[in-house]
Amino acid sequence: MTNHLSAGIPADLSTEHDYAPVTVVGLGPMGVALAEAFLRTGHPTTVWNRSPEKADGLVARGARRAAGITEAVSASSVVVVCVKDYEALYGILEPAGDALAGRALVNLASGTPEQAHEAVAWAAARGAGYLDGAIMVPTAGVGRPGAVFLYSGSREVFDAHRPALAAMGGTTYLGADPSLAVLHNTALLGLMYATINGFLHAAALVGTAGVTATEFSRIAADWFLPDVVTGMLGAQAPALDEGRYPGEQATMEMNLTALDHIHRTSAERGVDTELPGLMKSLAERAVGAGFGADSYFALVELLKKPAPPR
Amino acid sequence: MTNHLSAGIPADLSTEHDYAPVTVVGLGPMGVALAEAFLRTGHPTTVWNRSPEKADGLVARGARRAAGITEAVSASSVVVVCVKDYEALYGILEPAGDALAGRALVNLASGTPEQAHEAVAWAAARGAGYLDGAIMVPTAGVGRPGAVFLYSGSREVFDAHRPALAAMGGTTYLGADPSLAVLHNTALLGLMYATINGFLHAAALVGTAGVTATEFSRIAADWFLPDVVTGMLGAQAPALDEGRYPGEQATMEMNLTALDHIHRTSAERGVDTELPGLMKSLAERAVGAGFGADSYFALVELLKKPAPPR
Repeated sequence: MTNHLSAGIPADLSTEHDYAPVTVVGLGPMGVALAEAFLRTGHPTTVWNRSPEKADGLVARGARRAAGITEAVSASSVVVVCVKDYEALYGILEPAGDALAGRALVNLASGTPEQAHEAVAWAAARGAGYLDGAIMVPTAGVGRPGAVFLYSGSREVFDAHRPALAAMGGTTYLGADPSLAVLHNTALLGLMYATINGFLHAAALVGTAGVTATEFSRIAADWFLPDVVTGMLGAQAPALDEGRYPGEQATMEMNLTALDHIHRTSAERGVDTELPGLMKSLAERAVGAGFGADSYFALVELLKKPAPPR
Repeated sequence: MTNHLSAGIPADLSTEHDYAPVTVVGLGPMGVALAEAFLRTGHPTTVWNRSPEKADGLVARGARRAAGITEAVSASSVVVVCVKDYEALYGILEPAGDALAGRALVNLASGTPEQAHEAVAWAAARGAGYLDGAIMVPTAGVGRPGAVFLYSGSREVFDAHRPALAAMGGTTYLGADPSLAVLHNTALLGLMYATINGFLHAAALVGTAGVTATEFSRIAADWFLPDVVTGMLGAQAPALDEGRYPGEQATMEMNLTALDHIHRTSAERGVDTELPGLMKSLAERAVGAGFGADSYFALVELLKKPAPPR
């Protein structure tokens, strides 16, 4: 499968869609930020929330409050839904029934890849197009330069409503598989947590010698992560795709020695040993699986499968 | 304790030290790269290795091969040692005995913080100054702009020999505690492995939908890690130092929900669940410890201590 990465706000907003009416359903802090972005860019914006008073501020800024979900859906050809989960999405939209036909449903609720696939079928049964989206920016960043939104699902729906979606932020289309947006979101968050955990463990470790997190971050965040680690990931990606893990620079065995060292030093300094322990056991498993002379990146072969029970 | 971060090659190389004689002990690939950097910058360079033929290439480029360790040590006021571990260091230098008196020992061998402390005492007993160093660059980067070397230990030794050390790369002095260099090295490597593991897990996850690592790295390594995650770490560091973890933007509870989601999605897609499982259980432990309404960065309080047995 090929992804079509096309980030950024398009320069050629067609006049046809420039001020297309938009409906926003779900007015939590993020939904409010999305509606505000539509209002700011001049889109006639209809809003709906189960507790109608959540729309008060938006109405004061020019939004139209729909009396019910059917009215909300009927007001625009694109309905952006920002609710807690899929259960909430179905519960709220079900009463709109036939009103959904011919419209585009843009779902920004988090879920699993399977749920995204189910939502396509649910929307299709009601004659609606479906686009799944992931918001990769906090509420304060919505509508600002650099706000990343990831989309997947119907290319037709994406192309038709991209000018309106651009009011919220960048419009990166990942592909027709509707699960791609949530899958990327989940993967990126996993990467974020792994990196934060690694940073916090490292800060705890140097903290045992009285080094502050601020001092450490000057080396770790201002130099090491951006200049050393991030570049390495991008550089290794093509090798991962080829399934080649040349260990000329450093082998899995050598990395295992380093991980053992990190594990022992963590124990010696009295900080957490679970994270280094997990990484060490994973590298041991890689050596056991025959990747000892390969690069550390061969680990991906293990991560592609569930771990064997201990 | 205050760290003195002073990276980069100093502009004011005093003529006194500019071409100070230097001895390099241990001629593995890294030791050879170090000796070459000294030769390139014009330092009279004496080299020694247990297998003397390892010096052949360096001798051809102008290095002097010492016949024995005592001759090697006696040739320079600074002795840079780049051997496998502390055992090798002691084994090699012990026969030099009194020749070490009044000289500076710069140890670039990896070890534990405790070993660095022991080495100070070992050197002092022989009348030698001691500086512990960590090489944060591969052999090919030695002596090039951006080559980071971390030092800790005697400030006097560092100041006296900094102009010579600058031949190898940047000269970042972390403080008088001799364990700081190896501790930083260990912490940074731990952060590196955690980040790589997170990236590989994420690549495995999006790979289940046919997304290539190269495609994913364009989002993850070209944008998400440098623009979102790295900035967050630097921004949160002062709060970590104050022990304040305000959960206004997102609470530990909310992050636990996300981690549970990552864990379930990993299981659903048939990839590794150990890494997300560990992160989830750590966040659960944080909630259990009363950090549920704090930010995710409160995790550091758990990581400062050994994990309780399961």
